[in-house]
Amino acid sequence: MSFSITILGSSGALPAYGRFPSSQFIEIQNRYFLVDCGEGTQMQLRRYELNVHRINHIFISHLHGDHYLGLMGLLLTLHLQKRTTELHLYSHAGLDEIITVQLRHSKSVLNYSIIFHTLTKDKHEILFEDEHLQVESIPLTHKLTCSGFLFREKPKARRLNKNRLPDGLLLQQIAALKMGDDVIEEDGKVLYKNEDLTLTAKHSRSYAYCSDTAYEPKLIPLIKDVDLLYHEATFIEDDKLKAKETMHSTALEAAQIAQLAGVKKLALGHFSARYKDLIVIEEEAKTIFKNTVLATEGQNFSLEE
Amino acid sequence: MSFSITILGSSGALPAYGRFPSSQFIEIQNRYFLVDCGEGTQMQLRRYELNVHRINHIFISHLHGDHYLGLMGLLLTLHLQKRTTELHLYSHAGLDEIITVQLRHSKSVLNYSIIFHTLTKDKHEILFEDEHLQVESIPLTHKLTCSGFLFREKPKARRLNKNRLPDGLLLQQIAALKMGDDVIEEDGKVLYKNEDLTLTAKHSRSYAYCSDTAYEPKLIPLIKDVDLLYHEATFIEDDKLKAKETMHSTALEAAQIAQLAGVKKLALGHFSARYKDLIVIEEEAKTIFKNTVLATEGQNFSLEE
Repeated sequence: MSFSITILGSSGALPAYGRFPSSQFIEIQNRYFLVDCGEGTQMQLRRYELNVHRINHIFISHLHGDHYLGLMGLLLTLHLQKRTTELHLYSHAGLDEIITVQLRHSKSVLNYSIIFHTLTKDKHEILFEDEHLQVESIPLTHKLTCSGFLFREKPKARRLNKNRLPDGLLLQQIAALKMGDDVIEEDGKVLYKNEDLTLTAKHSRSYAYCSDTAYEPKLIPLIKDVDLLYHEATFIEDDKLKAKETMHSTALEAAQIAQLAGVKKLALGHFSARYKDLIVIEEEAKTIFKNTVLATEGQNFSLEE
Repeated sequence: MSFSITILGSSGALPAYGRFPSSQFIEIQNRYFLVDCGEGTQMQLRRYELNVHRINHIFISHLHGDHYLGLMGLLLTLHLQKRTTELHLYSHAGLDEIITVQLRHSKSVLNYSIIFHTLTKDKHEILFEDEHLQVESIPLTHKLTCSGFLFREKPKARRLNKNRLPDGLLLQQIAALKMGDDVIEEDGKVLYKNEDLTLTAKHSRSYAYCSDTAYEPKLIPLIKDVDLLYHEATFIEDDKLKAKETMHSTALEAAQIAQLAGVKKLALGHFSARYKDLIVIEEEAKTIFKNTVLATEGQNFSLEE
């Protein structure tokens, strides 16, 4: 089952050199999410041949324009293309009003329902949960109330060792094995030990999206050991004053967070327009965290089970 | 002096095949205007190397998303790039609130002032005027209150015939010649006849932008004889029912308007996503109005004096 993140845009507030503002398309076990929706996101979805109609949950980190200004166009496109499935929007307070005002002035009534979920300022909470997956908010530190998002697979069932599995097991006994239990007879006697018939469960994957934020050690326990961390790196250390003033991070700071959280891989984004060549950002982060890449547009990160 | 229109986008409501929604950059004698501002306009301005900072007047035809959703991003970019010059926005009621709500939620206070000019529904009025140019609204017929815009150079001064101009004329006498008057002596005697010293004035150019609109003969007298008419042609006659239902025009209808108004050239735009190849639109219009072109992205129309 796939767990993949496609970068639709990773520019900072000023789009430059053809870079698009923040947006990511995420697919996890046939669930489709959009994280942030900067201007032009619907064009980028089309460019990378991603099906916008599959998206049922859109998470907006904060209400700076480069993170949500593509949303209204996308919502109207879904309407024009006759969507009827409800759509869940997760955002800090304000987005509801922004959308409502625009629908009113264009005299539009959408064919589908939007379910608003208002994020709680400074709170780490579960936003979405089903059998296999949960999505949590990550409080970030920025000029405007802002949250990152953590996508985390739930613990998986142990895998049946088909070479050793005896015939005639009941469905209930198989379910017990997957849960890690032994196969027990009615009188309580152990018929088969779990470890004899099963293999370890596959790895539960996790992805954290942290943009926009100043250097914030408080987020380390929340993103501990994730497979992939997207962390903003708007600036490099040479522009640290600018980073402090605007409450953004440098590439070095992003790498420090990655290292302290013990993540497997770091993807950097939200690049300032002052850097035409992004290699300086990548190299700075790599001085302390080797497994770093630039999250440039069109790139796809596929996490292994 | 130049009078040029650059097409930034001419897609209908659904962006498809990499086409961008409506927006045009207009330069007339070193005055810079933007007409409509669909999503991605700021990227398109950058792509065609047009200087967004020169724009002092933005005209929005109506509040359907494909005509204004790029405005907020553009306004924020101007702010981030330290614009201080005031900016004039012309729109039907509602845009002020749409912008204000978004500025409030992003806690932004722009470095520059926006002067709102509210268009009057169903009224043909002068929106902008200076020594050389005026911009008028053109009431259009659409589902939402909508206006086109007419850019018209004022009558120009007669040109001095340098081969015949005698030495020693006073500045006041030269001004009189340019205005079409003779050079008169103090006693009222005609010293030089105007026609002997001047040539006809250069042509005063005009451009009409008509999108979105159903077929509307009422606009013919307003756009009579313009050098260039941009008229929407969302559909072709095969889809006339759809055109009627959505209050858009077919290519044939646009051509009829062009013919009846006696315009010099017709540029078609606002193409529905149902047409991948736009040749059908061009060909349909050409059956009754030969001097028709498709207003595709990046195209520049330069009007001759």
